[in-house]
Amino acid sequence: MENIRVIIWNENIHEKKSEKIAAIYPNGIHGAIAEGLEKFGYNPKTVTLDMPECGLSDEILDNTDVLIWWGHLKHDAIPDEIAEKVKQRVLDGMGFIVLHASRLSKPFKLLMGTSCRAKWRENDETERIWIIEPGHPIARNLPEYIEIDKEETYGERTDIPAPDELIFISWFSGGEVCRSGCCYKRGLGKIFYFKPGHEEYPIYYRDDIRQVLANAVDWAKPSNGPKTTFGNVQPIEKI
Amino acid sequence: MENIRVIIWNENIHEKKSEKIAAIYPNGIHGAIAEGLEKFGYNPKTVTLDMPECGLSDEILDNTDVLIWWGHLKHDAIPDEIAEKVKQRVLDGMGFIVLHASRLSKPFKLLMGTSCRAKWRENDETERIWIIEPGHPIARNLPEYIEIDKEETYGERTDIPAPDELIFISWFSGGEVCRSGCCYKRGLGKIFYFKPGHEEYPIYYRDDIRQVLANAVDWAKPSNGPKTTFGNVQPIEKI
Amino acid sequence: MENIRVIIWNENIHEKKSEKIAAIYPNGIHGAIAEGLEKFGYNPKTVTLDMPECGLSDEILDNTDVLIWWGHLKHDAIPDEIAEKVKQRVLDGMGFIVLHASRLSKPFKLLMGTSCRAKWRENDETERIWIIEPGHPIARNLPEYIEIDKEETYGERTDIPAPDELIFISWFSGGEVCRSGCCYKRGLGKIFYFKPGHEEYPIYYRDDIRQVLANAVDWAKPSNGPKTTFGNVQPIEKI
Amino acid sequence: MENIRVIIWNENIHEKKSEKIAAIYPNGIHGAIAEGLEKFGYNPKTVTLDMPECGLSDEILDNTDVLIWWGHLKHDAIPDEIAEKVKQRVLDGMGFIVLHASRLSKPFKLLMGTSCRAKWRENDETERIWIIEPGHPIARNLPEYIEIDKEETYGERTDIPAPDELIFISWFSGGEVCRSGCCYKRGLGKIFYFKPGHEEYPIYYRDDIRQVLANAVDWAKPSNGPKTTFGNVQPIEKI
Repeated sequence: MENIRVIIWNENIHEKKSEKIAAIYPNGIHGAIAEGLEKFGYNPKTVTLDMPECGLSDEILDNTDVLIWWGHLKHDAIPDEIAEKVKQRVLDGMGFIVLHASRLSKPFKLLMGTSCRAKWRENDETERIWIIEPGHPIARNLPEYIEIDKEETYGERTDIPAPDELIFISWFSGGEVCRSGCCYKRGLGKIFYFKPGHEEYPIYYRDDIRQVLANAVDWAKPSNGPKTTFGNVQPIEKI
Repeated sequence: MENIRVIIWNENIHEKKSEKIAAIYPNGIHGAIAEGLEKFGYNPKTVTLDMPECGLSDEILDNTDVLIWWGHLKHDAIPDEIAEKVKQRVLDGMGFIVLHASRLSKPFKLLMGTSCRAKWRENDETERIWIIEPGHPIARNLPEYIEIDKEETYGERTDIPAPDELIFISWFSGGEVCRSGCCYKRGLGKIFYFKPGHEEYPIYYRDDIRQVLANAVDWAKPSNGPKTTFGNVQPIEKI
Repeated sequence: MENIRVIIWNENIHEKKSEKIAAIYPNGIHGAIAEGLEKFGYNPKTVTLDMPECGLSDEILDNTDVLIWWGHLKHDAIPDEIAEKVKQRVLDGMGFIVLHASRLSKPFKLLMGTSCRAKWRENDETERIWIIEPGHPIARNLPEYIEIDKEETYGERTDIPAPDELIFISWFSGGEVCRSGCCYKRGLGKIFYFKPGHEEYPIYYRDDIRQVLANAVDWAKPSNGPKTTFGNVQPIEKI
Repeated sequence: MENIRVIIWNENIHEKKSEKIAAIYPNGIHGAIAEGLEKFGYNPKTVTLDMPECGLSDEILDNTDVLIWWGHLKHDAIPDEIAEKVKQRVLDGMGFIVLHASRLSKPFKLLMGTSCRAKWRENDETERIWIIEPGHPIARNLPEYIEIDKEETYGERTDIPAPDELIFISWFSGGEVCRSGCCYKRGLGKIFYFKPGHEEYPIYYRDDIRQVLANAVDWAKPSNGPKTTFGNVQPIEKI
């Protein structure tokens, strides 16, 4: 796993603006996610919005196999060109793991083609994540469900394309459901949307959530399949 | 719609064994479903398990466009040959609407290839059915969600193939979720599994549930597509 | 069917620039498509790129149930705002039928999130369209395959998301295959990509191709499902 | 990879009945497949129809992670109980790779719920397998297409459920197409149907075909996801 090059991108605004969030994530949400992946043998790097080119320079993206994304307040701070570049890297084969409110990030919306909107509520409700496809690699080593005592509620209908594979469905104590683990293939790339991760709760320290993320990285890594030739082609000569 | 030939098959055991159920469904569950479809201009017929050939003779099936199925206690009373025949009619193009506990009926299990089992609980819990694909014809004229004050709870993971189209997901007050409106194409036939319908609650009198069933019949009707030729074939002469 | 408001949008460049194409389509490709739909009882209107707002004003789009699109040379002549508007109407429920080279049109690419590129060759090859889902409404009244003596070849891998429903696969005499009938649901809208339609061949006069388009319009029409509420919501009061 | 327990099941009839086939596969089709997997570091075992319990005893199946199946002439020689047992093991998580004419094997048909029939022709035609999902792990290290100079032709519509993931589509020189690489999840198990492998051609010696099989074994291996609890359950106590 060491040779899968994982980059964790975090907006890193809440952690700097709010003492409360900073206390929960003293090393940033990215730091907590990185720590979790290290326990599974990965060697991730982290970048943040305040870095040059929003932390998403060509040099960085050219050396990324799987990009994990956490954003919430500042989706618009990513210039369109950078969002397009991230989208293109996914189509070229980079794995893309999209967390929580990052469903509204520019690259994810560009890749989905829909608004990606949802119902939401910050109400300390319980989220219970039911594993719908236990045979999928992202379900590896998971229990039948993952219960999060307090989480932000997201509710359907969420405006996403039907996932190629629906892995998790969440139940919320306030009355909503949400497709909370969604796999997509776009171009050569694999995309996993994972719902949990509100900044006010220490979710990315949990072993089960970390297991999901480790599984997702392994699933989303590039497959070294054939690059596609496009455009005007002549008939293939029979061998 | 009058020319869509709908047959409603009902086991019709609860209604005869239990005064309580007979009081809820004095004309049988099949009668309540038929009444609902009539309001939408359909002209359905009903058959029951106690009829010759379980109500599923060749003559009946040969004149059926869409078969609606409600069974619970007596799945095994259907001989294997009849179950195979129903399966074959679906593959030949007959629509098949499978209600509630009929997920364990022989024809549905044969068509799915899985156990179709679920978690369940009779506990007077609330079921809230969220519409996940509001652009699908089965969502026609529905609200954003359908709330059933008291229903039997079904819970994931249910052992079904991932539906070709997932239309509804149900939330239950006791903590479960369920893929409760599932579309499948098998052979030339279209199959819709719809979760609600526990015999102890008067669900099939509801306007919203009747709208779902009317929509489903229209969606599941045969499409008059091409019959497939199988077996040894010669190359098609170029026109 | 008369009450389904169909708009056929055509770039209409080939027909004006080339005597050869004008001879094939004296009333434009849009005219031939409209004529075909009329035979099925539709009452379509046509618009072209050279009209104000590219023929896609709010007034027109507000009165469109299904938009059929044929473009090839001038995809970039559609301003981004209009492309975004078309995309948004699809998400709001408008059907969208995308023909041939229109796979590279701005609205389709925005909705798919991928490059939508393909291999292609203009070589007078035979295309044989195999019907993969004969139970789907778009296969209504079709034969097992549709053979087009001469068509432009498109080849896989085409860079599209896996369709929600794959209806046709085309075989080409030069050695390629193409997913040539692809259904997508995005937002409340239904999208059908249909491959045939190179301007140099009189394809849109064919009865079988017109049957496909008539079927597709019926399938893609809005379903009158629920509008989704997004954003911050409070828990639903139990009824 | 050594610890993935792979069993290759072969009918092994052609090899014993026909000198011609015996000359092509002196160690049996199973032997050629085994040899191919060994090159990728697997340590497969082989079983054949003439062994006790058709080579599919509980002891063997209990120690199988991925079962590869090649059958053609003697599908009916597998007793129903054994076919059901194989199906159940798949639902319990065993990977299942189904080759060529094994689409008509009992376990595959039970799992699919359809007839699995196809058009076919033994005519020395060329098969060109186009890779449709190059980002999928089964496409690892493959070229854009795999060309087989002479193969048996299979043609659509083949009577299978729409695959969860469609990886390959084959083109045949005689005019047919075939969905030739199809992924399914059923229960906890993963199933891959792969079309090539007519006994008269030395296909399982090819490096590219062996790459596909090695990829498929890795994809189909059990994921160690949660076992599902079914039946009557009580509400989960909130933690």
